[in-house]
Amino acid sequence: MHENDLLAWFAANAHRYAHVGVGIGDDMAGVVIHGHADGSSGVLALLKVDQALDRVHFDLREHTPRQAGVKAVNRCLSDCAAMACRPRAILIAVALPQNASTEMAQELFKGCESAAGVFGCPIVGGDTAVWDQRLAITVAAMGESPVAPVRRHGAAVGDAIILTGRVGGSILGRHLTFTPRIAEAQAIHQVAAIHAMMDLSDGLAQDLPRLLAASGVGAVVEAASIPIHPDAHTLARTDGQTPLTHALVDGEDYELLLTLAPADVSRIQALGMSVKLTVIGTITARRELRLQDEHGASQAWPRGGWEYESAPA
Amino acid sequence: MHENDLLAWFAANAHRYAHVGVGIGDDMAGVVIHGHADGSSGVLALLKVDQALDRVHFDLREHTPRQAGVKAVNRCLSDCAAMACRPRAILIAVALPQNASTEMAQELFKGCESAAGVFGCPIVGGDTAVWDQRLAITVAAMGESPVAPVRRHGAAVGDAIILTGRVGGSILGRHLTFTPRIAEAQAIHQVAAIHAMMDLSDGLAQDLPRLLAASGVGAVVEAASIPIHPDAHTLARTDGQTPLTHALVDGEDYELLLTLAPADVSRIQALGMSVKLTVIGTITARRELRLQDEHGASQAWPRGGWEYESAPA
Repeated sequence: MHENDLLAWFAANAHRYAHVGVGIGDDMAGVVIHGHADGSSGVLALLKVDQALDRVHFDLREHTPRQAGVKAVNRCLSDCAAMACRPRAILIAVALPQNASTEMAQELFKGCESAAGVFGCPIVGGDTAVWDQRLAITVAAMGESPVAPVRRHGAAVGDAIILTGRVGGSILGRHLTFTPRIAEAQAIHQVAAIHAMMDLSDGLAQDLPRLLAASGVGAVVEAASIPIHPDAHTLARTDGQTPLTHALVDGEDYELLLTLAPADVSRIQALGMSVKLTVIGTITARRELRLQDEHGASQAWPRGGWEYESAPA
Repeated sequence: MHENDLLAWFAANAHRYAHVGVGIGDDMAGVVIHGHADGSSGVLALLKVDQALDRVHFDLREHTPRQAGVKAVNRCLSDCAAMACRPRAILIAVALPQNASTEMAQELFKGCESAAGVFGCPIVGGDTAVWDQRLAITVAAMGESPVAPVRRHGAAVGDAIILTGRVGGSILGRHLTFTPRIAEAQAIHQVAAIHAMMDLSDGLAQDLPRLLAASGVGAVVEAASIPIHPDAHTLARTDGQTPLTHALVDGEDYELLLTLAPADVSRIQALGMSVKLTVIGTITARRELRLQDEHGASQAWPRGGWEYESAPA
């Protein structure tokens, strides 16, 4: 069972309702509240739920409960960033192992609250239960979009493809300490129309095809332009893979992948943000994904190649 | 570690934000979106997150994934009922055991969707992950209140205390098949001002003290008036406890406990709802909880007696 297939099945089988602006399949859902029955009027609330599980997303043998709490919240907030959403409230559900101490639960909560507090976002509710299994943290976020929520499906032919920060090798520690790109998403969206955006959780190699599939377009990516994180170089020295491969296939970068009109690139570069913005390629009408080296020769897109057809639409 | 103590600690340690109308400690949280920074203007979104864990809230050795999905959603919707909230969207996070089949995940989803569909509420998003532990389902709900959300803290001296349905013995099966009292809460709230309300998840013996503590009042409950479910009688025949004890201490009734002015009792009875409404007692200024038999003599309040001081404020 593949998570993508399951989500696609859910999306296809979910009933449709007029007040749902954004349903299953994007980084957040969008729901109209206090509107009319047909979905008109009212305001749009953006919603997301995300899990962080012991020994899947963190490991309590190595990491503290506070680190787990920080990561659980930041994973969810990264999805808020991906919609250019301003998070307004967070709820936390925790399934605690039987041997968990009160102090452990409190540390977890402090981690959650410190991460949310960075963005002025309160923890407004939660649920705790105890069981004889490992720690599971589920974070739900609600937010609003000052402009309009940015989705995955708006990439237009000719758009520049842009990445925040540097990617690869997050397993060396950044997967626990990253900052969701909420401020960057809003700053960019205020000066330029972002056509499509998502956050990188499974790695560029898997995530870019999802954005392309949602938009019904293809892309050419310049291999030499991909901003490789020093951690990817460090990893490459020990495991024999190239730094580029790590940059493409490693997950949990939590950087933003976005597209906008080429004319807007200088505008967002002029923001002078401390986070690097890199143009890594161009959206094409031809629905294929090419990775191009500096001589214009095509390289294979890693991890099973171009999985366009299997990516959720 | 007691869940009440932990929630009280979270509530006491959570930062305060102006746009949070209802924080930790009620059945749902209330958050203003699209308002001004001070929380004025905007609209109120009601939020809740709740977990259903294998072998805690259901048992996959006995129950189907579809039943687990139904219960997970209905537990959360019962909290919506408790605020007289109209649910508008649900999100589901599922931690699937490694051996889970695609069919199992789909059945779970169908259960969730059928339960939500009863109230015209879409499933708008979710998260699935696989781990080597048991099934955990987390449900987040967002809703709106057509009037104003009903909270736990408004019980007034002299109020009638009312219970929907009959209580006790839900373990015989009703804990899986109950209907959240969403329609009833809204019907009642449209004709009468509900002063305080909550849903019964831990049993009247534990939950009534919470409502009283939140409101800063006490109560006299007439033992003979408590609507005992036939299941409580069935259980009593086998375990030697009284049916009344089952009605008071058994959890997972998911009925509503509410208070309103005595003058409004006839008004809500006149609604002619199919669900029984029973006046079980009266709110008192004296901050104690008395269970009174038909001769006016006091009986002990079950399960550790009157735990007012330890109930979350």
